[in-house]
Amino acid sequence: MTTPRIAIDAMGGDEGVRVMIEGAAEARRRHDQFQFLLVGDETRIQAALAEHPNLRGTSEILHCDDVVGGDEIPTQALRRAKTTSMGLAVNAVKQGNAGAAVSAGNTGALMAMSKLALRTMPGIDRPALAAVMPTLEDDDVIMLDLGANTEADARNLVQFAIMGAAYSRIILGRKPRVRLLNIGTEEIKGFDRLRDAAAELQEATGLDMDFDGYVESDKINRGEVDVVVTDGFSGNIALKAIEGTARFVTDLLRAAFTSSIRSKVGFLVSRPATELLKHHLDPNNHNGAVFLGLNGVVVKSHGSATAGGVAHAVTVAAKLLEANLTDRITADLNALQSRAQGAPTE
Amino acid sequence: MTTPRIAIDAMGGDEGVRVMIEGAAEARRRHDQFQFLLVGDETRIQAALAEHPNLRGTSEILHCDDVVGGDEIPTQALRRAKTTSMGLAVNAVKQGNAGAAVSAGNTGALMAMSKLALRTMPGIDRPALAAVMPTLEDDDVIMLDLGANTEADARNLVQFAIMGAAYSRIILGRKPRVRLLNIGTEEIKGFDRLRDAAAELQEATGLDMDFDGYVESDKINRGEVDVVVTDGFSGNIALKAIEGTARFVTDLLRAAFTSSIRSKVGFLVSRPATELLKHHLDPNNHNGAVFLGLNGVVVKSHGSATAGGVAHAVTVAAKLLEANLTDRITADLNALQSRAQGAPTE
Repeated sequence: MTTPRIAIDAMGGDEGVRVMIEGAAEARRRHDQFQFLLVGDETRIQAALAEHPNLRGTSEILHCDDVVGGDEIPTQALRRAKTTSMGLAVNAVKQGNAGAAVSAGNTGALMAMSKLALRTMPGIDRPALAAVMPTLEDDDVIMLDLGANTEADARNLVQFAIMGAAYSRIILGRKPRVRLLNIGTEEIKGFDRLRDAAAELQEATGLDMDFDGYVESDKINRGEVDVVVTDGFSGNIALKAIEGTARFVTDLLRAAFTSSIRSKVGFLVSRPATELLKHHLDPNNHNGAVFLGLNGVVVKSHGSATAGGVAHAVTVAAKLLEANLTDRITADLNALQSRAQGAPTE
Repeated sequence: MTTPRIAIDAMGGDEGVRVMIEGAAEARRRHDQFQFLLVGDETRIQAALAEHPNLRGTSEILHCDDVVGGDEIPTQALRRAKTTSMGLAVNAVKQGNAGAAVSAGNTGALMAMSKLALRTMPGIDRPALAAVMPTLEDDDVIMLDLGANTEADARNLVQFAIMGAAYSRIILGRKPRVRLLNIGTEEIKGFDRLRDAAAELQEATGLDMDFDGYVESDKINRGEVDVVVTDGFSGNIALKAIEGTARFVTDLLRAAFTSSIRSKVGFLVSRPATELLKHHLDPNNHNGAVFLGLNGVVVKSHGSATAGGVAHAVTVAAKLLEANLTDRITADLNALQSRAQGAPTE
């Protein structure tokens, strides 16, 4: 294998080139065997690189003038796949010029471009967007799909479970506990598709996961489950409800702490505690949503991520590349298929 | 109108009779024109009443031996509608013996019994479960459906919007801001049913609400919206994600505050601030989910609610009864129907 290389869309994100380059430089210090392909405006990239000699020496610049807009409709952006920094970063993966691409640009456009250029891998019908969230315990939890597919049938959900488990194993280094997201209202519990997916995952042997039915959304962050599988609509709602509530509670806390002199003093004294909380909940420490199920690794960095957040997203890409994510998914898919061929169900 | 009366299922809930009676007594102190029908084991109710003379004087006891189990399947509980405390409380509303029923028992059973006994009100196809949540601002936000219907079409969603708006107006005393819950992933934004419901609500005139499209789940608690409308699956996921995350963050905070002597001291000093936060997030202060769309008011108190929580749920029932919730819903339904008849859409 040649030196692994990561393509960075240097133009995406609210802060643009400077933050993307600084983030890549920070990631490079952690993964010093990686090379980088920096895609975007050469002059601005060169200016940003001046402060990061460690990255400069191991990077190639691919110049382009065009950038995908944040509000651009994906189908429209798709037509400029060959001229934009986002399109060229993804295309580098397709051409084998890079093993993974990282972009902080328009999510819908990145998804559309990645799907078209890289295609779904054998055995996967639809790619899914997966993110990592903190839990009460040390280990993080992965949730997917988060919006790549508004709806998902039982077959899609089973594939999402396999992809999420492969991703989780790379992070955790052990067999992950996988659950389907469901609601608990007695009789009307779930849909047929959830029941069917649960049955298939329960009966499958040889899958490298510990599947055990359902989880409700109030248990996602308890540290009792490693992978939460759902359709893109429910997943997006759960993810944003979690993000929004974490912000809501910390905003309330801030308001409470500044409500009196006494509480301000208490805040200062207990600062190490609140800093710990802030660190644990800081989205930059979990930045980098992954498009799973494509022939190549594509990671979406949040538009508002700091350089530290970008570094985290690049590190995610590097880890998935090192661990051969795609091969791991294929192994589980084969296990499922050989079972289906051995004992065909309806 | 005769003296309004509220039927209390005294047997439901984790804590049983004592908490239910104490809660009713607390609510009675706030709404002293209300009468109560206490349904359940007479001996235990009498014992609990001994401590609450204010409630005793204005209550009638309806004795029964049978109780719906917490894990009981709704269809099974339904067969004992005429013998259980839950069934008899709901039945009192049907018979006109009470204007509203409050139970802390099995949600699915309460929903099934209420639907069967009270039937959906004219113009409503399906009842919905609505709950109130805190926001960053002073006003609370209402969300529905939370699990009465796993799926909902455009027509259901429009009816949910009307029911939620009527409920919200009673709490807020002003025209509520109503939004449909959706995800923001550019191209694939929402389903047809969301688009259709939005179009109908946007075009309707004479509705007593301020409808303006969609809200994402990270904005539910920002205080920018008063009613969030969705299907029961998504609503249940959003509600529990919010509840779970609020608990998650406060658990992290507790862990952080006890991580060192210094932060423990800071915690003590800033106690008023954290108490404020606790008060704001305490589910007891928002207890009482309402089944909207039935011919009568039914309120579900949380199984683990304190007496203060039960009092809140009983107060919700009293308010909805006083404000004639059902009439308000009918008025908006008529506005919608007269428009539909004037200018029929497909």
